[in-house]
Amino acid sequence: MTDQKKSDQTTSSEKPWGGRFSEPTDAFVERFTASVGFDQRLYHHDITGSIAHATMLAQVGVLTDAERDQIIDGLKGVKEDIEAGRFEWSVSLEDVHMNIEARLTDRIGITGKKLHTGRSRNDQVATDIRLYLRDEIDVIAEELARLQAGLLDLAEREADTIMPGFTHLQTAQPVTFGHHLLAWYEMLVRDADRLQDCRKRVNVMPLGAAALAGTTYPIDRNLTAELLGFDRPTENSLDSVSDRDFAIEFCSFAALLMTHLSRFSEELVLWTSAQFDFIDLPDRFCTGSSIMPQKKNPDVPELVRGKTGRVNGHLISLLTLMKSQPLAYNKDNQEDKEPLFDTVDTIKGCLKAYADMIPAIEAKADNMRVAAKRGFSTATDLADYLVKKGVPFRDAHEIVGKSVAFGVAESRDLSEMTLEELQQFSDVIGEDVFDVLTLEGSVQARDHLGGTAPNQVRAAVARARKGLRLV
Amino acid sequence: MTDQKKSDQTTSSEKPWGGRFSEPTDAFVERFTASVGFDQRLYHHDITGSIAHATMLAQVGVLTDAERDQIIDGLKGVKEDIEAGRFEWSVSLEDVHMNIEARLTDRIGITGKKLHTGRSRNDQVATDIRLYLRDEIDVIAEELARLQAGLLDLAEREADTIMPGFTHLQTAQPVTFGHHLLAWYEMLVRDADRLQDCRKRVNVMPLGAAALAGTTYPIDRNLTAELLGFDRPTENSLDSVSDRDFAIEFCSFAALLMTHLSRFSEELVLWTSAQFDFIDLPDRFCTGSSIMPQKKNPDVPELVRGKTGRVNGHLISLLTLMKSQPLAYNKDNQEDKEPLFDTVDTIKGCLKAYADMIPAIEAKADNMRVAAKRGFSTATDLADYLVKKGVPFRDAHEIVGKSVAFGVAESRDLSEMTLEELQQFSDVIGEDVFDVLTLEGSVQARDHLGGTAPNQVRAAVARARKGLRLV
Amino acid sequence: MTDQKKSDQTTSSEKPWGGRFSEPTDAFVERFTASVGFDQRLYHHDITGSIAHATMLAQVGVLTDAERDQIIDGLKGVKEDIEAGRFEWSVSLEDVHMNIEARLTDRIGITGKKLHTGRSRNDQVATDIRLYLRDEIDVIAEELARLQAGLLDLAEREADTIMPGFTHLQTAQPVTFGHHLLAWYEMLVRDADRLQDCRKRVNVMPLGAAALAGTTYPIDRNLTAELLGFDRPTENSLDSVSDRDFAIEFCSFAALLMTHLSRFSEELVLWTSAQFDFIDLPDRFCTGSSIMPQKKNPDVPELVRGKTGRVNGHLISLLTLMKSQPLAYNKDNQEDKEPLFDTVDTIKGCLKAYADMIPAIEAKADNMRVAAKRGFSTATDLADYLVKKGVPFRDAHEIVGKSVAFGVAESRDLSEMTLEELQQFSDVIGEDVFDVLTLEGSVQARDHLGGTAPNQVRAAVARARKGLRLV
Amino acid sequence: MTDQKKSDQTTSSEKPWGGRFSEPTDAFVERFTASVGFDQRLYHHDITGSIAHATMLAQVGVLTDAERDQIIDGLKGVKEDIEAGRFEWSVSLEDVHMNIEARLTDRIGITGKKLHTGRSRNDQVATDIRLYLRDEIDVIAEELARLQAGLLDLAEREADTIMPGFTHLQTAQPVTFGHHLLAWYEMLVRDADRLQDCRKRVNVMPLGAAALAGTTYPIDRNLTAELLGFDRPTENSLDSVSDRDFAIEFCSFAALLMTHLSRFSEELVLWTSAQFDFIDLPDRFCTGSSIMPQKKNPDVPELVRGKTGRVNGHLISLLTLMKSQPLAYNKDNQEDKEPLFDTVDTIKGCLKAYADMIPAIEAKADNMRVAAKRGFSTATDLADYLVKKGVPFRDAHEIVGKSVAFGVAESRDLSEMTLEELQQFSDVIGEDVFDVLTLEGSVQARDHLGGTAPNQVRAAVARARKGLRLV
Repeated sequence: MTDQKKSDQTTSSEKPWGGRFSEPTDAFVERFTASVGFDQRLYHHDITGSIAHATMLAQVGVLTDAERDQIIDGLKGVKEDIEAGRFEWSVSLEDVHMNIEARLTDRIGITGKKLHTGRSRNDQVATDIRLYLRDEIDVIAEELARLQAGLLDLAEREADTIMPGFTHLQTAQPVTFGHHLLAWYEMLVRDADRLQDCRKRVNVMPLGAAALAGTTYPIDRNLTAELLGFDRPTENSLDSVSDRDFAIEFCSFAALLMTHLSRFSEELVLWTSAQFDFIDLPDRFCTGSSIMPQKKNPDVPELVRGKTGRVNGHLISLLTLMKSQPLAYNKDNQEDKEPLFDTVDTIKGCLKAYADMIPAIEAKADNMRVAAKRGFSTATDLADYLVKKGVPFRDAHEIVGKSVAFGVAESRDLSEMTLEELQQFSDVIGEDVFDVLTLEGSVQARDHLGGTAPNQVRAAVARARKGLRLV
Repeated sequence: MTDQKKSDQTTSSEKPWGGRFSEPTDAFVERFTASVGFDQRLYHHDITGSIAHATMLAQVGVLTDAERDQIIDGLKGVKEDIEAGRFEWSVSLEDVHMNIEARLTDRIGITGKKLHTGRSRNDQVATDIRLYLRDEIDVIAEELARLQAGLLDLAEREADTIMPGFTHLQTAQPVTFGHHLLAWYEMLVRDADRLQDCRKRVNVMPLGAAALAGTTYPIDRNLTAELLGFDRPTENSLDSVSDRDFAIEFCSFAALLMTHLSRFSEELVLWTSAQFDFIDLPDRFCTGSSIMPQKKNPDVPELVRGKTGRVNGHLISLLTLMKSQPLAYNKDNQEDKEPLFDTVDTIKGCLKAYADMIPAIEAKADNMRVAAKRGFSTATDLADYLVKKGVPFRDAHEIVGKSVAFGVAESRDLSEMTLEELQQFSDVIGEDVFDVLTLEGSVQARDHLGGTAPNQVRAAVARARKGLRLV
Repeated sequence: MTDQKKSDQTTSSEKPWGGRFSEPTDAFVERFTASVGFDQRLYHHDITGSIAHATMLAQVGVLTDAERDQIIDGLKGVKEDIEAGRFEWSVSLEDVHMNIEARLTDRIGITGKKLHTGRSRNDQVATDIRLYLRDEIDVIAEELARLQAGLLDLAEREADTIMPGFTHLQTAQPVTFGHHLLAWYEMLVRDADRLQDCRKRVNVMPLGAAALAGTTYPIDRNLTAELLGFDRPTENSLDSVSDRDFAIEFCSFAALLMTHLSRFSEELVLWTSAQFDFIDLPDRFCTGSSIMPQKKNPDVPELVRGKTGRVNGHLISLLTLMKSQPLAYNKDNQEDKEPLFDTVDTIKGCLKAYADMIPAIEAKADNMRVAAKRGFSTATDLADYLVKKGVPFRDAHEIVGKSVAFGVAESRDLSEMTLEELQQFSDVIGEDVFDVLTLEGSVQARDHLGGTAPNQVRAAVARARKGLRLV
Repeated sequence: MTDQKKSDQTTSSEKPWGGRFSEPTDAFVERFTASVGFDQRLYHHDITGSIAHATMLAQVGVLTDAERDQIIDGLKGVKEDIEAGRFEWSVSLEDVHMNIEARLTDRIGITGKKLHTGRSRNDQVATDIRLYLRDEIDVIAEELARLQAGLLDLAEREADTIMPGFTHLQTAQPVTFGHHLLAWYEMLVRDADRLQDCRKRVNVMPLGAAALAGTTYPIDRNLTAELLGFDRPTENSLDSVSDRDFAIEFCSFAALLMTHLSRFSEELVLWTSAQFDFIDLPDRFCTGSSIMPQKKNPDVPELVRGKTGRVNGHLISLLTLMKSQPLAYNKDNQEDKEPLFDTVDTIKGCLKAYADMIPAIEAKADNMRVAAKRGFSTATDLADYLVKKGVPFRDAHEIVGKSVAFGVAESRDLSEMTLEELQQFSDVIGEDVFDVLTLEGSVQARDHLGGTAPNQVRAAVARARKGLRLV
């Protein structure tokens, strides 16, 4: 063996599985295949899981009570070491699990070697990730609720503020700003629901599946599940160690959430443009330019919009990862963690940014109002007026279409035409038409469940607060 | 205008929105933007929705009872025309909605023009898709349950058949074929759950949102929702017309389902290879080669595996589609249908193929057994044996590792070694070791919830049948 | 066998590979696995390929000249049948290849059965798709060039039109509309390059690989390649039948093209909004609303933007499809066609729509100019002015930042301040400052390769026309 | 302001754009929007770019020679600080650019503030990434070539080793292992080509575009491009700062490369399974199990296969990121870096792992040979034999199909049947048939460009070595 080759290899002495091997792992391969660089984040849940496992093993007689206590004390010590920064993670120990177990044995001696009885890293890591994700889901659920509550407050405050509603980014009909914000709110309601549905499927315990087939020890999986707060143990050992559905489902939830935040972001960016100028974002949420001294950029919404790609990408990563994998565990699965971790971090950051920023939005009601008056936004009201006077809807539509064409040519809105001008297009139009052509008339007329009338907006806020258990 | 240009344009006479326009739509643009080529599939649900809408309009006094009856009769006639192949879809009428409405007016005259009162195509199409998807979800749920039931039958039949369990596609530990099939079953349980969770969010009614802001007519959305079997009306009109979450969520469900089917497929392909030869698929599920006369190819699993890409792609299509769309409806959303329709068709086809094929799988138990005996599949049992004799697990692992290295060198399995040979590695090994080294001993020893022991498999089948309401 | 089961099966009499099978294909499986529903689109290229194959076989003595002529005549007849609508495609014949071959044998008898000598459907279909895609690439290249030429004309026309340039959708610096359009042009230059790079790798001939290993006949692959216009035959038979890189690379090209068109679309939608109002799109490229009579919607750009998702999805479909496929051909590969076909159709449609629409864009130069004057767009010019007077850039930036803060508070642009006001922030400011604060001054000052100065725009158009070989 | 709020905000004193702002950035927003955590990786290319920029500024008279020298010395000092670990990156300075510039000014005083003259971070970062990516492309190209060379050596060594060729993972025809490896080689040839095509489009210089419109200084972009080794400056300033095509194109290349590596991986995993047992991977490329002492797992190929998802995901991230972005630079674009960096790291790691591992593969020729004899792999040879005796191919196929059915029933391969048995199916079969039914006869008969005959394999290796410039 050349020296070069030697230096690229390690001794296998530390490896927990070295017995069968005649040659140490290649040094690059060791680094390439190690996961400890990113899975050390799971240390807390790994230790929690091990404590429950040891407790159960003692309960069923596989460990003595003394061994159990020694192991639990040792694990607590390891945790303290990690949190105090006294723990040196070793790549040659591959992952968080072996690092912790090796340190445990360093601390408590031979009893430490008994901890891995009746389990495998395959079920251990599946358990750790679920514990981790369950905790993060609960944090995310709270942050989501905080954002929702902020939206409700803002919607209530702006329940009477009139802005143009758009379809195709063309002025469509007047709506209230509060109503618009409640549309955002509804998207988040679905996200919150999906998150809880996902949590149900996360909170099931794979521990006890061991490598793939279960174990020969008389383990009590219901006990371990109870100790760890899982709803129940999983039903099948092969599935337990190979299933990553929960990570994919979580990323599906996250991709939809980010899709929603990207939609809010797009609108905030539009609204802060000089052309729309519908809202103001406080300076503390914006940044400037290194070259253009006048710039105040809506960085937060832009960045959140950009992060949508990241989360969609992680979803595809995980789906691609799992495609066509035969049972049971394959090394491919090590690639589940980074996309999941980054998805969690990304949506926590984005939710925090939004929950902080939303209450600080300042509506420029005058600008919104001016915009709402443009673009023949009450044309549908005129059509409805005609229908109520007996004109079939399709004919009313045609009549108003011609009035608008006249208005475009004359650069005048419907409400700016004279009665005579309007009557050119239909003689059923009377003086009372001008009531329906006002912005207030238009929004107040849409007075049914889900409509934009201010009192509907307020009622919707009240219902939503109940849904969020804020009242 | 040149002749060429003329021929590229149509008259706008038919368009329901022509009033404001001074120039007909370009002929290519008309074809390019029309959706009737694919959305005609919604005709049934469109008519159902219109009948409910008309019924509600009469109830609240916007239509007379006579008008309502005329409209409903007319719509039923249109439906008969379509189903009898007497309906010519017109691209210049853009979509299924205007095609049907135009035909209705042809049939019943001016009253037909009143149907569109208080609604818009924006809320109409959102309603149609949800009605369509709800129906398809129910069909898919049944097909999924049929596949699950077939798996349970096969698992029960093969509860005692021993095969090698794999991790990393290396022989790991013996498992029963029934246990392996139940791992597949568990994946489908989660799919079925997710499908029902998705259905909850599909079955909410957007009708009444009109274009984006609600309508000025005194509509009763609860009544329409009830008539159409929706759980409730949506809460916000802007959200109602722009929301496509339900389609994305459905495709997320479908992508996971296909991920599972691709995993089953991978294994079926492996198992029908000459190298594994674990099962036989009947000729009727296979095809041959145009050049190689001996070939019998597992086309169905291969094709299903390939179709995973299609569904993942549709999910990305829809997520990309919705990214950063400002409220409310934009024309982009027309692109929601084809991915959704194809996803529905694909998973229905794949589920049918699997539900038909699974019961026809013939296990080659002898081949499985031979394979299970290879690869030192009971090495973990030997380690557990040592632990039970007092050796710490990590040390036991090392001892067995060395025994295996010896076996590899000598080309003999653990059960083929003599007691003396085994005792080289540990003197606690006794004559009783050979019991734990048998395949039967190994699988029966994993006798806890989720383990591979045959009686656990049978118990799991029984529980699963209850879950499926088969017993 | 029950009657139900019987009706679900076909006789295998027609199958070209039935010899080894004891049971006919299940009727559903036959439909599920057949590709003729979509691959019939390849009939023209399939026949072209077969004619070349027969010509080569005769040249090397495997067919007689008479057999060759009979086959070629027969194939031409089949083609006429197809194009005349006299061809009934049979699902039980699976695909375009067997359908055509079966009809050939119907027409010319036993000699037809000799055509498949020395080839397989595996290399045949790979050849057909490449012939198809090469032709479509050439069509797309032309349409792309037409769009590019249209952009150049418009850019030249608008070389002096000043609009606000945006970063973060905030007013940044004045640019010319022509310059902005040339940014679009540059994106398409890269697309056109990538398309030609892709074509190089498409235009290589897999025929002769047969099923996977080559053939025992003395074929002359260089001859066939020459007859079909391929640059060369492929190098490896296993790779030839399993490679779908060219389809993936084409979809990668298409995804970037659509990304560009989506960016153009986003801007067109913004610019036609009431808030920007920078351009007008002729009525013939827009459509209206079934409910809101005033609406004129930019459907074409919206729809193109939406179609981005479709193409990204197809790219993912194909990447997912090919992931981890072992050599050589697997049935999964049948799933390559629909995403590829739809990608081709989609980008051809979108390019046509854009190439038609771009020349019809009408700039509203006055609105653009008004917008460009807002938002302190010449702040950078003021900073540069200060630098030229000796102030370090970072300090100049700070000075201008403070001037802008003053302007925001006073609602006045820099050019609307008095000299005294400006001098509050720096005493190096003199009367000459007002020249650099004009829009014209600003754009003309950026007079270097790639800058927005009108003469740079005109020079860039001239260079681009040379690149397109328009001059 | 509450204390809590205060602690969440920073002073804006350090910000290079603070002049216009009345409120410091929120502390969380500062962290959330900062990129220095990941873009510090670009420090080397940032400094290289700045040195070239300063050199050019002096050349055109914007800086004095003394200022230039001071700046260049200062930048070199900053670089040394960074590489010596003496540089503390500041989040409040946002990114790598402002961190370096601030340190420069610390070191050299006011002259440091002149460096940013005539450029913006928008063109600066675009330049940095291109410089970075160009360097990485060159590293990747070398590693790819090393892998290719290793494949050629192995293919040559195994040019005569016969293994079963598969389609549908069913035994198809015998091929040589060398031929199979050359199929892998061909995939990499295309990857290498695509990488160079991508490099052409990477190696173009955006510097000089400044914020978006160019600059008012008399810069010489050709000079800067030359100093930095770029092929040419970009053509349009708006495009320059907003274009991320090169990153997407690189990820498209990478996704295809990973698709290929995932296909190799799948086969290596299959071949090391107990069922195939075609090759051996040295222990140093494998790892074991924490629970199953006998396991030796092909971790490297599995992990590489899994990493395919990661790269596909990054491609989708970037495509999603750029979808529908209006010109010019938006903050979204900051999200371009992490996917690109991780893609670069991933493929470098995977290529190294493969380039190291491939030469160490040990073929188990005996096992391959035994497998090749099974499964009627010479059935096509028998059909070809019949054709050469005058039977039309389709009829020959039928005859052989029946022979195979007989063989399946009798459990005998074609070569194990007697002449009489074979003659049951066709009387043109003579004694000479047994020559074509040998494995050697079969592979040697496929003796044309791209075929599996050993001499074709050797010729292909020779051609490939020329292509790689190894000879």
